[in-house]
Amino acid sequence: MKTERSKVKRIPKRGFYDKETVYRILDADFICQIGFVHNEHPIVIPTIYGRSGDLLYFHGASVSRMLQTLETGVPVSINVTRTNALVLARSAFHHSLNYESVTLFGTATLVSDEEERMKALHIISDQIIKDRWEEVRKPNDKELNVTKVLKLKIQEGSAKIREEGVGDDKKDYDLDIWAGIVPIERTYGAAIPDPLLKHPTELPKSVLNIENEKL
Amino acid sequence: MKTERSKVKRIPKRGFYDKETVYRILDADFICQIGFVHNEHPIVIPTIYGRSGDLLYFHGASVSRMLQTLETGVPVSINVTRTNALVLARSAFHHSLNYESVTLFGTATLVSDEEERMKALHIISDQIIKDRWEEVRKPNDKELNVTKVLKLKIQEGSAKIREEGVGDDKKDYDLDIWAGIVPIERTYGAAIPDPLLKHPTELPKSVLNIENEKL
Repeated sequence: MKTERSKVKRIPKRGFYDKETVYRILDADFICQIGFVHNEHPIVIPTIYGRSGDLLYFHGASVSRMLQTLETGVPVSINVTRTNALVLARSAFHHSLNYESVTLFGTATLVSDEEERMKALHIISDQIIKDRWEEVRKPNDKELNVTKVLKLKIQEGSAKIREEGVGDDKKDYDLDIWAGIVPIERTYGAAIPDPLLKHPTELPKSVLNIENEKL
Repeated sequence: MKTERSKVKRIPKRGFYDKETVYRILDADFICQIGFVHNEHPIVIPTIYGRSGDLLYFHGASVSRMLQTLETGVPVSINVTRTNALVLARSAFHHSLNYESVTLFGTATLVSDEEERMKALHIISDQIIKDRWEEVRKPNDKELNVTKVLKLKIQEGSAKIREEGVGDDKKDYDLDIWAGIVPIERTYGAAIPDPLLKHPTELPKSVLNIENEKL
């Protein structure tokens, strides 16, 4: 995982290179930012992903410029960042954030095997909302024909984590300035049924799993 | 704002190019992902920003590899994404997210004027937590010496927004499958005072402003 490129330069003690840490952060989220080079210029685009083992899957419309560029094997950089708290110090300089972040480097390849494609779509669906795949109408041939699936082997990258209290300069502790942490919480709210539901039904398992839960 | 590069390709009706929309999204957040090219490879790094007028300010340690690279004037791409809801359709294919996203292109320049540097640090501080700057010890010369501030003129980019209900295929509306929206809410939790506070004080204005509020 650790290479010259993926090594955390600023504040090395915040860097982690073990799969357990990197995968825990990846698994907690489903949105990443993918960076790639197009006509010598960088482009950063948000997209959803699903992880399974050492593979990260992406999907989208077959005509997507991003996927068409990525499948040519250009190098990509991927970042997932979860901001967990404001860290408010006595000095402006020591203000910080608590966060968990993963940066990966690699190249993506097209998934062409139909079985793996369907499995990948299931994995991406599960990453966003577990058990939903079992509840819905599965993709048909027409839909699969306009969908592209890519995968990236996770082998180079790092996690960076700050999860601490306030750290101020010694002499500033005497100042009469409030310091502390303000947590940032992400939760799923109450589900809003589609007004066009013809058969009003109870909420499905997938929604009951997450409603009013943290993410 | 709109150029060949910044034009929203997939689902053009979701693209917006007016400053009002782009700035509203930028102002709602304070974390962006910056992509740049280093040794012909893309790198995506999360960082905080502050907007003032048509300028986006960044800061960090003077020794930061990212800032040192950016100040040479390399092209950058910046993305800010706010994911607001899961959109759960009857078909796997029509699942979606509601989100607001901004992508910018440009080059950053070093801010060397001391007055503008201090103003920029104030702007970044305000972007994260308004009124905090007035409460804390301001940066001293030693701190300013190890801090780099960059700015980027906002002139090329776009916003992409999905803010709709479920859209399913006509024939799927007869299926007995629950469909709807699950909102994602971001809120600030209760503040946790630094255990080393020597003068236990009431929460300051900056924290009272945001505690239990959405972000």
